[in-house]
Amino acid sequence: MPITITAFKNSPDGGQGMARDMRVRWALEEVGQPYEVRLLTFPQMKQPGHLALQPFGQIPTYEDGDLSLFESGAIILHIAQTYAGLLPDDANARARAIAWMFAAQTTVEPPIVEREAAILTEGDKPWHDQRMIFLDERICTRLDQLSRWLNGRDWLENDFSAGDLMMVSALQRLNGEGLRERYPDLERYVARAEGRPAFRRAFDAQLAVFIASQSAG
Amino acid sequence: MPITITAFKNSPDGGQGMARDMRVRWALEEVGQPYEVRLLTFPQMKQPGHLALQPFGQIPTYEDGDLSLFESGAIILHIAQTYAGLLPDDANARARAIAWMFAAQTTVEPPIVEREAAILTEGDKPWHDQRMIFLDERICTRLDQLSRWLNGRDWLENDFSAGDLMMVSALQRLNGEGLRERYPDLERYVARAEGRPAFRRAFDAQLAVFIASQSAG
Repeated sequence: MPITITAFKNSPDGGQGMARDMRVRWALEEVGQPYEVRLLTFPQMKQPGHLALQPFGQIPTYEDGDLSLFESGAIILHIAQTYAGLLPDDANARARAIAWMFAAQTTVEPPIVEREAAILTEGDKPWHDQRMIFLDERICTRLDQLSRWLNGRDWLENDFSAGDLMMVSALQRLNGEGLRERYPDLERYVARAEGRPAFRRAFDAQLAVFIASQSAG
Repeated sequence: MPITITAFKNSPDGGQGMARDMRVRWALEEVGQPYEVRLLTFPQMKQPGHLALQPFGQIPTYEDGDLSLFESGAIILHIAQTYAGLLPDDANARARAIAWMFAAQTTVEPPIVEREAAILTEGDKPWHDQRMIFLDERICTRLDQLSRWLNGRDWLENDFSAGDLMMVSALQRLNGEGLRERYPDLERYVARAEGRPAFRRAFDAQLAVFIASQSAG
C-alpha cells in the first residue's frame, strides 16, 4: 500500500492550493515519495471513521502501513525525518529548520488565519473595518520581523528546508491581500519557493482534483 | 555550560505559569536536565542581541553549546528527542505523540489565545460581548472534540508524552474562564498533569522568579 493522504473533495479555496493537503503533497514531492489521495466531503470529515484518524474532523491525514497521523505540521515533520530532502544532515541545523516549522505554524500563520476568519464571519458587522486595521497591523509586525531575518538570504537558514516549506505555505494565504506586497523580499522568497518543480507538481495535482470536482458537480 | 533558557523578568501573568518558558521548564524537569535562566525585560526582547536568537522578539529561547533554538514547541521537541522521558520508544508512537504537540499548538491553542487578545485589546469596544460568544463557541468546539477523543483515557495516547505537556499547557490558559469547567474529564486531565512532580518543580521555579521581581520593585 502506498502512502495515503486525505483532502477536500470540493476545496473551498477554488483550487488555489490553500487547503492544508497542499503542503503535505509538496513535502512528498520534495522527497520523491508517491502517494494516493482519498477525497472527503465535509459531512464525511465529521463521521466517526474519519474522527478516529483526525480527532478534530479536519484534513489532511496521513496513512502509511500501521502509522496514521494528523496535523499537517506533524505529517511534514514525519516525512522530513523519514526521507532525505527536507532537513539538513547536521543535528543542530535540523533542530533549527524544525524551529522554523513551528514559527510558521504558531507565530506567523495564526494572525493570517484570524484575518481570514474575520473576513468570512464578520465581513457584514459594523466593527469589521476597525478590526481589520488591527488585524493587518498584527500580520505586518510578523512580516516585518521575517523580512529583517531574511535580510537578503534565499532561505530561512542555508538551504531550502521543511521550515521554508511551512513558512511559504503560511505566507501564501496572503496572496492578493495587499500586505505581503509591502515586502518585496518576501514576495521574492515566496516566488523562489513556488518555482521549485516539487511545488509545481503538488499544485497541479491539487488543482486537478478541484477541476474534476467541478466538472463532476 | 548548562542549558540556558530565557524568560520574562516581569511576567505579565503574575506568576501563574502562563508564559511559554513554563512549558520548557516543565519539559526539562521531566527529562531531569538542569538549566539556567536568563531573564529579559520587554525592551531587551526587542534588542538586536535577542532578535539574533529569537527573530520575533519573544521568549523562550534555548541555548546548549553551539545550538540556539526558539519557539517553545521546537525547543520541547528537541528536548524530547534528545533525552528520554517525553516520547515513547516505538517510532510510530513517537510520531503520534508529536502529532499531538502540533495539534495543541495549531488547533487547540490559537482560539484560546485569540480570546485572550480580544479581552485585552477589545474589552472596551461595543462589539466585545457579541464577539466573545463566537470566540467561546469556537473554543468549546475544540474542547468537545478533545473530550470525545480522551473518552476515559488518562493521556492522549498510552503514556504521558510531550503531546500531553503541550496540550495541558494550552488548556491551562483557560484556568478560571468558565469554559473548560464544562468538561469534567478535561478538568481531571489538566489536574492529573499538574500533579506530576516535574510540573510542580517547574511551576515553583517560575513563581520564584515572579516573587523576586516583585520584591525587587
